[in-house]
Amino acid sequence: MKLATLDSGSRDGTLMVVDRDLQWAVPVPQIANTLQEALDEWASMAPKLENIYQSLNGGEIEGVALEVEQLAAPLRRAYQWLDGSAYLSHVERVRKARGAEMPPSLWTDPLMYQGGSDHFLGPQEPICVADDAFGVDFEAEVVVITDDVPLGVTPAQARSHIKLLTLVNDISLRNLIPSELAKGFGFVQGKPASALAPVVVTPDELGPAWDGAKVHLPLRTYWNGKLFGEPDAGEDMQFDFPQLISHGAKTRSLIAGTLIGSGTVSNVDWHRGYSCIVERRVMEIIEEGAAVTPFMSYGDRVRIEMQDSQGRSIFGAIEQEMRRC
Amino acid sequence: MKLATLDSGSRDGTLMVVDRDLQWAVPVPQIANTLQEALDEWASMAPKLENIYQSLNGGEIEGVALEVEQLAAPLRRAYQWLDGSAYLSHVERVRKARGAEMPPSLWTDPLMYQGGSDHFLGPQEPICVADDAFGVDFEAEVVVITDDVPLGVTPAQARSHIKLLTLVNDISLRNLIPSELAKGFGFVQGKPASALAPVVVTPDELGPAWDGAKVHLPLRTYWNGKLFGEPDAGEDMQFDFPQLISHGAKTRSLIAGTLIGSGTVSNVDWHRGYSCIVERRVMEIIEEGAAVTPFMSYGDRVRIEMQDSQGRSIFGAIEQEMRRC
Repeated sequence: MKLATLDSGSRDGTLMVVDRDLQWAVPVPQIANTLQEALDEWASMAPKLENIYQSLNGGEIEGVALEVEQLAAPLRRAYQWLDGSAYLSHVERVRKARGAEMPPSLWTDPLMYQGGSDHFLGPQEPICVADDAFGVDFEAEVVVITDDVPLGVTPAQARSHIKLLTLVNDISLRNLIPSELAKGFGFVQGKPASALAPVVVTPDELGPAWDGAKVHLPLRTYWNGKLFGEPDAGEDMQFDFPQLISHGAKTRSLIAGTLIGSGTVSNVDWHRGYSCIVERRVMEIIEEGAAVTPFMSYGDRVRIEMQDSQGRSIFGAIEQEMRRC
Repeated sequence: MKLATLDSGSRDGTLMVVDRDLQWAVPVPQIANTLQEALDEWASMAPKLENIYQSLNGGEIEGVALEVEQLAAPLRRAYQWLDGSAYLSHVERVRKARGAEMPPSLWTDPLMYQGGSDHFLGPQEPICVADDAFGVDFEAEVVVITDDVPLGVTPAQARSHIKLLTLVNDISLRNLIPSELAKGFGFVQGKPASALAPVVVTPDELGPAWDGAKVHLPLRTYWNGKLFGEPDAGEDMQFDFPQLISHGAKTRSLIAGTLIGSGTVSNVDWHRGYSCIVERRVMEIIEEGAAVTPFMSYGDRVRIEMQDSQGRSIFGAIEQEMRRC
């Protein structure tokens, strides 16, 4: 099942069921007005939404043409966004860029931060930045959305709480981050609003690419129309999603609609390219002695997308332009 | 105006107007079902709620008796919780306890972290902890709630965005925090769900104690029935609320219903006592060579309250017991 949110003028938009090929959409206010409402009562809502989905795919009901530019983020306001950093080749390279060490504990204790969840950008909303000297970078990630997760959930138990998946562009302001991290309190200014992909999908949509814990497909990032990276999201992920959920729920429950991010998808093999600019800059320093690639400029575009083994877009594409605000 | 949320069985509870003396309450579903709904349209909702409040105080309408044990947090689910750490005597003492330095930048650059906002505890909900070896501590704070705050708001502009105030118990697990802070990514496991006071109030309820930026009243914390501290929230606050809001909004807008915390209220003069246990422990180390006071134990109770100059409770009391879960 695939779901999206129409930007209908209200704060949370209008929930829609979208067909498998991302061509047609059906608003479903008779079931739930918003994705959060559906997640609040997922056990009873999901079968009703699934029926609409099957009818839409089967041509038994007619949808309206899906216009991606009219979509809000599937969850425009969320109550929680916990972003892991599960690909240690990303962690290692970003730390190298900051001149920071890679303590051995990071192999067993996940990095995770509480992100701003009050405003997710839609898939085509611009990245608005007041000053391009902030060092604007994209970060392409996979994210899961849970139902209510009890405190102390184990990784094995956490699997059944993964209800939906999508992609996120976790935009980062590289030049503001070092001083924030030095304070220890995480990111406030260094991470502006993140963008979500056009649709969220249930795990069954991924077929064999979803093993219950990781997504075994490449995640493609394009910068100004050129492929920048296509690392495999199923490789080199040191902590899988159930482990990340368990980490987040060690001392508190997580409410339905919690987003858990993978962290920037990154492979040890750098020939796959990168899901963020800073990793390329670090490799340039190592290979050539200096970073050559600049961060994003006003007018730059980033596109993030994941295709299935037949080349069909699973979540639709995040496609954002950077603008001055 | 004072507002509370009845725990009516739904996820967000039911909004109620409460009289000035915290005796009577009137559910107001005809105006807004929840506090978030009211905050979403505050400019039009606030006058309607204020009318009910005046009628209730004037005895023109009858309320039901306010039962604090039936209250949920005023905002049980919130989209954003940004907690500052504006009292530097607290910061300095907590850092001493961890053996950490106090860099001079902390006098000009506020400490702030993104907290978990998906589940605020009601004023009498227990503090549930799986293991008392986590080092359970209370932290008594003042918090403001904003309407929509635009990106880049200045401190002067931020004043008008403060719509409501209340108290928070920002429960902290001291023995989990050092390793989290060392990672730089802020608190995930070290800060379980925080509790809010019974009611939120509009700034005018504070009279001359509110200067538009700080609350000039003592905040009293009782531990197992004994006064533990009564520092003045208006003294030694290095960054006032408008400055904290401006800091949080430097690179992103903040949505209506954002909570901004003061950090643990603390005075340089330690004879006023403390709003958290760790500060007393540090002073014991300095004065006596070793920390004597333990952290909270199962069955312990903490009470946090602020009275006006006539001794009337402004927000009602947070009163929590620590339990094993």
